Amino acid sequence: MRADHQTDLLIVGGTAAGTAAAAAARRAAPGARILLVDKGYDLAYSTCELPMFAGGQIDREEALLRYTPDAFSETFGVDVWTGAEVTGFGARERTALLADGRTVRWQRLILAVGARARVPEYLASAPHTPGPQGPAGPGVFVLRTLDDARRIRERFATDPPAHVVVVGAGYTGLEAAAALGHDTRVSIVAPAGRLLPSGLSEPLSRVVAERLTAGGRILVRAARATGLDRAPDGRPLAVRTDDGEKIGCGAVILATGIAPNTEVAAALGLRLGDEGAVRVTTAMRTNKPHIWAAGDCAAIPEAITGRPRWIPLAMNAFRTGRVAGRNAVFSLAPSGGRPATLEPAVAAFAVRLAGVDMAHAGLRLEEALDAGFTAEAVDIVGASHSRTLGGEDVHVRVVFDRRQGRLLGAETVGPPGSALRMNTVAALVRLGASIHDLEASDTVYHPDISPLHDPLRVAARSAQKQLRAR
Amino acid sequence: MRADHQTDLLIVGGTAAGTAAAAAARRAAPGARILLVDKGYDLAYSTCELPMFAGGQIDREEALLRYTPDAFSETFGVDVWTGAEVTGFGARERTALLADGRTVRWQRLILAVGARARVPEYLASAPHTPGPQGPAGPGVFVLRTLDDARRIRERFATDPPAHVVVVGAGYTGLEAAAALGHDTRVSIVAPAGRLLPSGLSEPLSRVVAERLTAGGRILVRAARATGLDRAPDGRPLAVRTDDGEKIGCGAVILATGIAPNTEVAAALGLRLGDEGAVRVTTAMRTNKPHIWAAGDCAAIPEAITGRPRWIPLAMNAFRTGRVAGRNAVFSLAPSGGRPATLEPAVAAFAVRLAGVDMAHAGLRLEEALDAGFTAEAVDIVGASHSRTLGGEDVHVRVVFDRRQGRLLGAETVGPPGSALRMNTVAALVRLGASIHDLEASDTVYHPDISPLHDPLRVAARSAQKQLRAR
Repeated sequence: MRADHQTDLLIVGGTAAGTAAAAAARRAAPGARILLVDKGYDLAYSTCELPMFAGGQIDREEALLRYTPDAFSETFGVDVWTGAEVTGFGARERTALLADGRTVRWQRLILAVGARARVPEYLASAPHTPGPQGPAGPGVFVLRTLDDARRIRERFATDPPAHVVVVGAGYTGLEAAAALGHDTRVSIVAPAGRLLPSGLSEPLSRVVAERLTAGGRILVRAARATGLDRAPDGRPLAVRTDDGEKIGCGAVILATGIAPNTEVAAALGLRLGDEGAVRVTTAMRTNKPHIWAAGDCAAIPEAITGRPRWIPLAMNAFRTGRVAGRNAVFSLAPSGGRPATLEPAVAAFAVRLAGVDMAHAGLRLEEALDAGFTAEAVDIVGASHSRTLGGEDVHVRVVFDRRQGRLLGAETVGPPGSALRMNTVAALVRLGASIHDLEASDTVYHPDISPLHDPLRVAARSAQKQLRAR
Repeated sequence: MRADHQTDLLIVGGTAAGTAAAAAARRAAPGARILLVDKGYDLAYSTCELPMFAGGQIDREEALLRYTPDAFSETFGVDVWTGAEVTGFGARERTALLADGRTVRWQRLILAVGARARVPEYLASAPHTPGPQGPAGPGVFVLRTLDDARRIRERFATDPPAHVVVVGAGYTGLEAAAALGHDTRVSIVAPAGRLLPSGLSEPLSRVVAERLTAGGRILVRAARATGLDRAPDGRPLAVRTDDGEKIGCGAVILATGIAPNTEVAAALGLRLGDEGAVRVTTAMRTNKPHIWAAGDCAAIPEAITGRPRWIPLAMNAFRTGRVAGRNAVFSLAPSGGRPATLEPAVAAFAVRLAGVDMAHAGLRLEEALDAGFTAEAVDIVGASHSRTLGGEDVHVRVVFDRRQGRLLGAETVGPPGSALRMNTVAALVRLGASIHDLEASDTVYHPDISPLHDPLRVAARSAQKQLRAR
């Protein structure tokens, strides 16, 4: 096989991890040949703003774009190929095959192939043609890429359905549904009616459901979707559920979570870990020489458990990309300085839906128990600020270890701004701090800003009482 | 001398510290006789909401009251005397003398006599009668007590001056000025034009000044007030400044800070520390047996320096009151459990003025240098959240030690909600964390809530670069 192209570093996949890797590699090795290939045509955009673009809050597509491919190439002196899908690796070592027949010979490889929307079995096997319609046929939307957002936006601008069913209750799908126009009714079909199951416990999920459904436009159905009836032209007619209902609808949004892209990793024989993501060291090295992984396709060391964990968040994409980029070129020609090391990560997540902040940091109770902690939780309701001045309920759950009182994680649901409290939790759990540390911490107090007894400290105090009561 | 009244515990002073002490003492000793005396008539109210009441944002006085004296007495089973000023202590040990001639014999004493507004020399010596007009004569307002707030409110409701001069730039006075009606022009006369000098560094003070004066209603004059011209009836005519100006005005608000009340402590021979506040142990004991102190009259151990420091904030009032109350009755009759210990405190402060949050935590640069640290600061401007979605500038200063990279403190100025970031700083500095810990912490990211690169982490990264550049 003839290699059309030779490069020192090949990065497969753009967006946060791939572009951060390319930029870091360029900074560390001004002379290295770097090639960034992406199967799509939008190299660098703000993934987390896609729901606002799909729903129309963000008007111009350009506002989402960090760089056009050309601008990125020029700014960082990196070759960029878009529409370039890697389909495999040649028999000869360190060669990548592209779908269009081109081959690339590389010295170092960074996989930043990301994750994709999960599509339920009954849709994946449906008779339709994936492609321009998205991964699940006409009228069934996911929201993972800029193309996905364009599809939703176009459909709802030109032919808004009167009723949309959201299948599952992951955050991106919920954000898209919440952002739709007020003429569209929404039914969320989620097992046990549980919203944001990967981030919120049952009690706080219930609080979110109450707020989301308060206006009457959005309903939550406690059921599992089992099938989709389509019209002859492929358009959705009704979602079938495990309680025997058929919920008529003009469109479906899948909020059934994401899964790491593993085809390329499998072709390379890489070791996979949590949720099928690529296992890496704190240097972002895989188990194969000359190959690094970064972003949503990689499982990274988690700070509390010390174990590899798949935490597909933008900040981790950025940080892992930066480490992988630096280290890949450093291994090629060690220059000044040291290789980079990824700090073990703490999951820290926030979303705002219908004017309500919900956020979590660290381990949820189930995760803590799974990890072997003698974990407990307390749930409290505090105030965002002085109730005399319009303060609202802030719900907080704190998770802690019974034996040492170690703080393991927290969740919150409250008015805008509440989510920032989880930053304190993320910083403290990383340092192995205790419930006592949280309670003893000083917090700012001002009637317009935060109450004398900050909800986090109220929760910590409640946890202390629970510990003492044993 | 005959003791009219005998009590196990006498608490001098109400509001946060005194009432917290009484409540904690009652919980710890159900049978103890507890007497709470206060020279005013409003025992328990929200001091920090006084500016909103003075300015009319809070309409009803009742909204500020935590308890009426009667309700407090009944709820906690505590004797409460209002209008009862302690003027000295009898020759016979453990006796207090009241202004009205009554005497109280006590077994344990807690001083919670608080702090008062500083009145500049040229006003304190002016020929007027303090009393119902406040501590500085007619038309000159301070804002420290509910009575002070009533005076401001009444004056501005019945006879609003067209122009008010604020002397000094402490936060309570600025809050009162910012809360005044839009028909009143305000001139703030502050040395070097520096606002909130005890909380904000010069660069961030300048940002606040720009925001406060943007509407044109408020001016900042870089000058020191040196005198006040009054009309024959005592009303203010003009404030004189050290640059020779006379600024005509109908009223004056003093924002020249506060000072601990020390008369009673001096009468008892208590050892005083920082700023003249009573020195106490972490048990809130003074240097005299059977006497504790709590709240704004006490200097408490500061977490970063380990030294006694006067940090007159509501949370410290509450916490020190709670510790003093429990320990005072515990020493009387040790029951189950242990005496309480005050955690060393971190200064953590926030205020919102004209829709801008300003907050700080830990040590300011000058304080850190004074304490012997090889301290440095970096100033950065980050974003509150996605600029595409209306994110605004968040100014952050981080103070750190050059030798170990230890985090010592931070300040911020930004849109509403920004202040909560200082809670993370307060928690981290208490644990002796470093700039690296701050940078490596995970933070929540959502376009509506907080940027991918949280301003605190941006500042920490900038500090790391500054450290490496040496």
